[in-house]
Amino acid sequence: MTTASNTPPASPVSTDVLIIGAGPVGLFAAFEAGVIGLSSLIVDNIERVGGQCIELYPDKPIYDIPAIPSCTARELVDRLLEQCRPFAPPLHLGHRVETVERLDSGRWLARTDKGLTFDAAAILIAAGNGSFVPQRLQLDEAAALEDHHVHYSVRNLDDFAGKKVVVAGGGDSALDWSLALRTVAGRVTLVHRRNGFSATDSSVANMRRAVEAGEMDFAVGTIASLNAPGGQLESIDIRQAEGTAQLATDHLLVLFGLVADLGPIAQWGIEVQGGRITVDTSNYESSRPGIFAAGDIAGYPNKQKLILSGFHEASLALRKAYSYAFPDKKRVHIHSSYDAKLAERVAASHA
Amino acid sequence: MTTASNTPPASPVSTDVLIIGAGPVGLFAAFEAGVIGLSSLIVDNIERVGGQCIELYPDKPIYDIPAIPSCTARELVDRLLEQCRPFAPPLHLGHRVETVERLDSGRWLARTDKGLTFDAAAILIAAGNGSFVPQRLQLDEAAALEDHHVHYSVRNLDDFAGKKVVVAGGGDSALDWSLALRTVAGRVTLVHRRNGFSATDSSVANMRRAVEAGEMDFAVGTIASLNAPGGQLESIDIRQAEGTAQLATDHLLVLFGLVADLGPIAQWGIEVQGGRITVDTSNYESSRPGIFAAGDIAGYPNKQKLILSGFHEASLALRKAYSYAFPDKKRVHIHSSYDAKLAERVAASHA
Repeated sequence: MTTASNTPPASPVSTDVLIIGAGPVGLFAAFEAGVIGLSSLIVDNIERVGGQCIELYPDKPIYDIPAIPSCTARELVDRLLEQCRPFAPPLHLGHRVETVERLDSGRWLARTDKGLTFDAAAILIAAGNGSFVPQRLQLDEAAALEDHHVHYSVRNLDDFAGKKVVVAGGGDSALDWSLALRTVAGRVTLVHRRNGFSATDSSVANMRRAVEAGEMDFAVGTIASLNAPGGQLESIDIRQAEGTAQLATDHLLVLFGLVADLGPIAQWGIEVQGGRITVDTSNYESSRPGIFAAGDIAGYPNKQKLILSGFHEASLALRKAYSYAFPDKKRVHIHSSYDAKLAERVAASHA
Repeated sequence: MTTASNTPPASPVSTDVLIIGAGPVGLFAAFEAGVIGLSSLIVDNIERVGGQCIELYPDKPIYDIPAIPSCTARELVDRLLEQCRPFAPPLHLGHRVETVERLDSGRWLARTDKGLTFDAAAILIAAGNGSFVPQRLQLDEAAALEDHHVHYSVRNLDDFAGKKVVVAGGGDSALDWSLALRTVAGRVTLVHRRNGFSATDSSVANMRRAVEAGEMDFAVGTIASLNAPGGQLESIDIRQAEGTAQLATDHLLVLFGLVADLGPIAQWGIEVQGGRITVDTSNYESSRPGIFAAGDIAGYPNKQKLILSGFHEASLALRKAYSYAFPDKKRVHIHSSYDAKLAERVAASHA
């Protein structure tokens, strides 16, 4: 397992299979690719391996990985890393594949947000639920104000120096940014739909102390509309149990948590239904030949979001991918119990 | 895990899912059935659990079970037994399901060779390559002589007392039975296509000593035809490098080893192609609604005989089976990371 350099080389990195996603399915795919004789590399937007199960429940026991009666997500990922180690797939973490383009040769050119390029015979998308992006405010007038007056993250605290800021949300992020902003902003008002929070006790206690001390305000309510004559945010209306209130503000920081989103994948010209990539269940190929999907991001009738399904989907996808990497070779069928060569690689990787 | 009594009860044993096959896929299916709230029981022809991977390569390492970098078949089966233990599926070993019959209620009545009957909402066939049966002699005239003059096993040595016997084959079984028969038969001739054997050195040495001592004969050749005027075997013709020879004989014992065979499953009215049960890849249901297949016995375009594929196939099949067991209930989607109830069961089963 090698973490590849993130400095873009002059020419594209060549591989048989570009695997998008370093979750359990992507890691197993790198192993399985090696078994059938394909080179692979893995790209993931997140800075660490493990995908959503590491992000969402690293220490919760998982019971339904076949032949592993109980393990945590962390243990599962460690086992999969060990399993693919004999093939040392390069890992490009913190890179998001933005575009894919079919070359005249039939191969694919993929480009990341940081300028890395890959030249691959096939692409396997094992990106779980896609990328996690901030949940947007569901108001038509919000989009036009985005970046200038409506924000979903804080790039620089100083942007809010001396300004009136409304922070919307009830989680740790909303509370912690409210507390941080009160030190630089003219006035901070936290708005949440109820007087209760999904946040750590200490953050809640700190916020309540700051409100009591008059350092910031807290209002119960939901955001009903934004008032921005001439494109300048002046106030927001919040709906409360007793009616509607108006809060004067310069900036609105919305921290409603993250939601899954296909992100750039949605622009790759592959058929997508209900947020999943439509695949053929005989080879898990998408509507564009050479692009495959496995795991939670793959969609077909009766799809179950089981990790074990992703393993199967990736295995079948890679066998079809083989025919793109080696169009002239007859496909080799490899059994569960392997040959001496693989045994040697496994032994060497543990030496 | 309970080994059920093999005494046939008066009425059929009722279960949600009857699983045929106690190999890795059948064992995992019993676990997965439990997870989604289905009762199950397992029937297998062989007297022990583990299926073909225990019969064929119990101690050879397997490298491609996801998240298990290396294990033997024996370890794999032990792990799967531990995993399904919380649901304690009854095991009926040494029973072969002979017939299945659809009841008016829509449920299935299955009957074993030893008279056990099961009443199930659905049947999942996870029978690997089916049963292993003796490889037959490929001569048209052999079938009519079977049991009287042409044999594929020895029931009782005394049946051959004083008779001329030809034993055909080159494995341990052919050599050992030749040696055993020479003590009771009038004359034993071993026939094998070459003067070399796929057998243990000691058996080969014992056979050669017996031939040198004049206690039996050995001839190189392949069986070309059987001569049986009036249904009585008199001689066989064997094709040799230098021509054809005739051997006078009363009995022919054919020991060509075992081959996989669907056995009674082929008579259940389900579509079979190339020795595999044709299934729909969205739910692994056969051509008869309510009968499913998973693992090596399931056939569909691009099917790979991977254990991990069997796990996926069984998981999807069981979700459809749920709709037969509980036609009025909405299907419950269960995630990889389970609820407290399952955690308790797992903990209790290890207590």
